[in-house]
Amino acid sequence: MRLVRIEHGEAPQWGQVEGDTVYLTRGMGGERTGETAPLSGTRLLAPAEPTKIVCVGRNYLDHIRELGNDTGDLPKEPGLFLKGPNALAADGETVGYPEWTRNFHFEGELALVVGRRARDLTPENALEHVAGYTCGLDLTARDLQKTDLQWFRAKAADRFCPLGPWLETELDPADVRVVTRVNGETRQDGRTAQMIFGVVQILTYVTRFVTLEPGDVVLTGTPEGVGPLHRGDTVEVEVGGIGVLTTRIG
Amino acid sequence: MRLVRIEHGEAPQWGQVEGDTVYLTRGMGGERTGETAPLSGTRLLAPAEPTKIVCVGRNYLDHIRELGNDTGDLPKEPGLFLKGPNALAADGETVGYPEWTRNFHFEGELALVVGRRARDLTPENALEHVAGYTCGLDLTARDLQKTDLQWFRAKAADRFCPLGPWLETELDPADVRVVTRVNGETRQDGRTAQMIFGVVQILTYVTRFVTLEPGDVVLTGTPEGVGPLHRGDTVEVEVGGIGVLTTRIG
Repeated sequence: MRLVRIEHGEAPQWGQVEGDTVYLTRGMGGERTGETAPLSGTRLLAPAEPTKIVCVGRNYLDHIRELGNDTGDLPKEPGLFLKGPNALAADGETVGYPEWTRNFHFEGELALVVGRRARDLTPENALEHVAGYTCGLDLTARDLQKTDLQWFRAKAADRFCPLGPWLETELDPADVRVVTRVNGETRQDGRTAQMIFGVVQILTYVTRFVTLEPGDVVLTGTPEGVGPLHRGDTVEVEVGGIGVLTTRIG
Repeated sequence: MRLVRIEHGEAPQWGQVEGDTVYLTRGMGGERTGETAPLSGTRLLAPAEPTKIVCVGRNYLDHIRELGNDTGDLPKEPGLFLKGPNALAADGETVGYPEWTRNFHFEGELALVVGRRARDLTPENALEHVAGYTCGLDLTARDLQKTDLQWFRAKAADRFCPLGPWLETELDPADVRVVTRVNGETRQDGRTAQMIFGVVQILTYVTRFVTLEPGDVVLTGTPEGVGPLHRGDTVEVEVGGIGVLTTRIG
């Protein structure tokens, strides 16, 4: 099932999609309120209400190699970093090219949204804590990754995490295709089966250190093919079984 | 004025302290509701409701030197990193010594809590966006700072940011004393005038990249004297004009 978060009246609302109808629900994955809205013409919001966005870096070997970070050993543990809720942007939105970077990169990724408070998850129960999966664009100021103390400006600036268009609740994340196109041209084309750490491993690892709350987002890393963006570009992240997240660079 | 966040009935409540009386308010810094609670015997909560916690690393020269990071040049820009709301702990709480670090360090700091949404602040209006100041303990897994891709486990794990006991709204942050004691022995003793980047500079810099929301926390960096903690230690962070934040290591 597809879950959307939409603008509706005073406040954002969650809903379930059936055909062109959105059945509004009490919160993400909650019961239907009885109210409906048409899907077409409705503005979609980023389908998450995170207290934090946990990201995995260097999770595809070919991407490690393309950035020159291959030391011959695979990472033994997931390399994690944070973005805050200020980074969210919705499907269809325009993200301004920041004037303070000269190398603004796209990284298309499978993202997941947490459905239940999660601490010390096990391989057996990890996926039960996922509300759904969506497409994520991990926007990155590549030049500042090298020069700054930590990846704060490089990764966590406002609108550096477009997410959407919706949550797909039924996906098996083990082997879906992750494709990124810039102005219609395919630039990344990977499969989640190539990830060094799969979704279950990421969730069991992260929750040893950090409690995940309902609405929190996890980005699972990007395949090879990342590259620079330019003003006016259109980026599409397509994840098999989910849909397409479109972002314009302003 | 002192603002506290307390357990009261069903939900946490903010209030103003006068003597031993807490005058409950509608949110942080809001109007009084007419209800009161006694301060003594009331459990204080971390005085913040952040969407993110922005931290400044390497902001005191003597601390840069003690960690062996002195390159001869002062940082030209604040080095920033994030913790999430999961890191909060309150005054008087016990933080368990994590089994996954062998070098768990204290870093006492001046902290501030944002009162109004803040983007592109100027030197003239920056301090108007501060709701108040408090004491912060930036707990750090020093060993993992060096080995991990980013400072995620090292800085952002659950309860790695004790904060409190309250917000002081009237403080001038330009030159207050920041003292950290472990089991009563003074280990850090600095003044915010020694910061490489002061509060105004930090706020104008951060808000060029990241929008700060009401309730967000900024930690301003730690003076020299950091060191390892052990199970059973009691850490006190005292900031002049505010009070003492006490944390026990379990």
